[in-house]
Amino acid sequence: MKDTLTDANFPRTADQRVYHLGLRPGEVANRIVTVGSPSRAKTIAKSLDAKPELFELSSERGFLTITGRYKNVPISIVSIGMGSPNMDFFIREVRESVSGDMAIVRLGSCGSLIDLPVGTIVVPQACVAVNRNFDYDFTYPENNGNEPAYRISKPVAADQELHDEVHKALEGAKPAGSKTTILAGIVNASADSFYSSQGRQTSFPDANADLIEHLKASTKDLATLEMETHHLYHLAACWDGRARVAKEAPAPLTTGPVSPVTSRQSSPQQSTTNTQVVSPHSVIRAAGAQMIFASRTSQDFITPEEVDALEHWAGKGVLDALVNLYIPAERLHANQGSVWELA
Amino acid sequence: MKDTLTDANFPRTADQRVYHLGLRPGEVANRIVTVGSPSRAKTIAKSLDAKPELFELSSERGFLTITGRYKNVPISIVSIGMGSPNMDFFIREVRESVSGDMAIVRLGSCGSLIDLPVGTIVVPQACVAVNRNFDYDFTYPENNGNEPAYRISKPVAADQELHDEVHKALEGAKPAGSKTTILAGIVNASADSFYSSQGRQTSFPDANADLIEHLKASTKDLATLEMETHHLYHLAACWDGRARVAKEAPAPLTTGPVSPVTSRQSSPQQSTTNTQVVSPHSVIRAAGAQMIFASRTSQDFITPEEVDALEHWAGKGVLDALVNLYIPAERLHANQGSVWELA
Repeated sequence: MKDTLTDANFPRTADQRVYHLGLRPGEVANRIVTVGSPSRAKTIAKSLDAKPELFELSSERGFLTITGRYKNVPISIVSIGMGSPNMDFFIREVRESVSGDMAIVRLGSCGSLIDLPVGTIVVPQACVAVNRNFDYDFTYPENNGNEPAYRISKPVAADQELHDEVHKALEGAKPAGSKTTILAGIVNASADSFYSSQGRQTSFPDANADLIEHLKASTKDLATLEMETHHLYHLAACWDGRARVAKEAPAPLTTGPVSPVTSRQSSPQQSTTNTQVVSPHSVIRAAGAQMIFASRTSQDFITPEEVDALEHWAGKGVLDALVNLYIPAERLHANQGSVWELA
Repeated sequence: MKDTLTDANFPRTADQRVYHLGLRPGEVANRIVTVGSPSRAKTIAKSLDAKPELFELSSERGFLTITGRYKNVPISIVSIGMGSPNMDFFIREVRESVSGDMAIVRLGSCGSLIDLPVGTIVVPQACVAVNRNFDYDFTYPENNGNEPAYRISKPVAADQELHDEVHKALEGAKPAGSKTTILAGIVNASADSFYSSQGRQTSFPDANADLIEHLKASTKDLATLEMETHHLYHLAACWDGRARVAKEAPAPLTTGPVSPVTSRQSSPQQSTTNTQVVSPHSVIRAAGAQMIFASRTSQDFITPEEVDALEHWAGKGVLDALVNLYIPAERLHANQGSVWELA
């Protein structure tokens, strides 16, 4: 992104592109599938409608957005990389780029902590966060007293209706004869690293030999481990609670509903008039579906062929769930001037 | 990475490539510059020697590794994206891919909290971590009692010798007539997000209106904010302390020094014999240099032209610092079979 930026608080380019994702209003839809890798985003995008032509934007910082329609409904697929910091960039920058409600489903991979075959798909009803405690002394563990080496957060829930839609739509998308189990209602743990905070043993001193056991004992219905879904659920819940919170200081950005600038993709001189404010009480609804790639009980790992097959139909399943979710027309971003506008 | 993987604890492909970076031993050198974006990695790589031909590997997960020589010394440049989870992938997977000592310098961008012009380069002597507390109730702040919304860790130090080399080499690389200030010895804060944990005000309820003030009051010599350097310093310090720590369970990976498999890049049938164990007490030395892109006091932002100029000579500076750091020959990865082997 080689443009001059404005405002160190919430940087944007002169043509209203957010700093890390590179998007501007009209390039991202209210319904979004988010994944970790560009190849998964492209696999899912194969299921989108032929019209309008797909909009694709790769940002300098590694985010890929693909926007089009699925069964005639505007939808985006955003690849964000790994870890909760990238999830934070994605949610906050997209929230400032779209009017109205948002519905977001993560299609990710995970490891299993209970006895489930690799290739199983889980739909987490809630997530906890597992974070390395940087104040723990990993070199002198005997000095730590009651300080824990890892902090396990309270659970935060998915949107119940979207969770149920994802479960139902995945069952509907499953190919005839498939032996894949789809397990909804589980609890997932999102860790701040793939290794230490997920109880993996490496050659670093991580004081994590009993972490998995401790996680299972402290978190009811815990089944899986990955790195992003908790932050999605957490920020969606925070957004929905924002109306209750008195701002301690005036926010330089939107303080009520988002009211971004809409612009045509192809126009070098885009409009800078604000769109109609759509609702004073927009929501962010979040759910997830995770494919078990690794079993932490058997040490099995999924094959590339199984990944290809799963991504294809599970991708269709999460697209179906998103278009099946009802969002009132007045709580959707305007079609006019968007990349999903039909000619 | 479409290969069958083995071992859910520390996944590798059959030809010994680590899962997320895609590297195998002999493709990454003991001296490493790490950056956030592929374009910065490529800018720095322009300063490398003409021989041997540069080795470049982009992984499916967004990591880019460039290996070659600088002033005849083997060196790698690794682009890792943003956030401490990506720093964790980088350090742990590279540690398992190279024998001997490691010296790592991050060349990143940051925001300033004190009155410094954009374009200033800082060399942090220590870092603290700032993490969102997921157990804080952001919707009902009145329910939190003494629970803080953000946790600020203790500081962790850079390697003093490498910090000093970076400072000295940057001064040496600065073009004649440049007005750039280079400020060593400061303290940097690495946050788990660009927005809430860095005190930016968005439309989410973040309970962070007084975070910057609190950070400045609690952390002596604090000058800058970014997202990765603390984790680099932290894991380097943990590694160096590992000899003191009795493992609670046998590690399936290296328990002492790293003893990886070396293989020639171009050979389809690579050797799988272990290299000589180089030292029972290898170290990881870490330091950083950060270019101030945004001033949080003036709200100024750097221009793209200033970024280009800075990256070019600061890149040379950190390369110089790394080759100036003495590492005994017996604590270096073998040249034989590596991508930096001279014909």
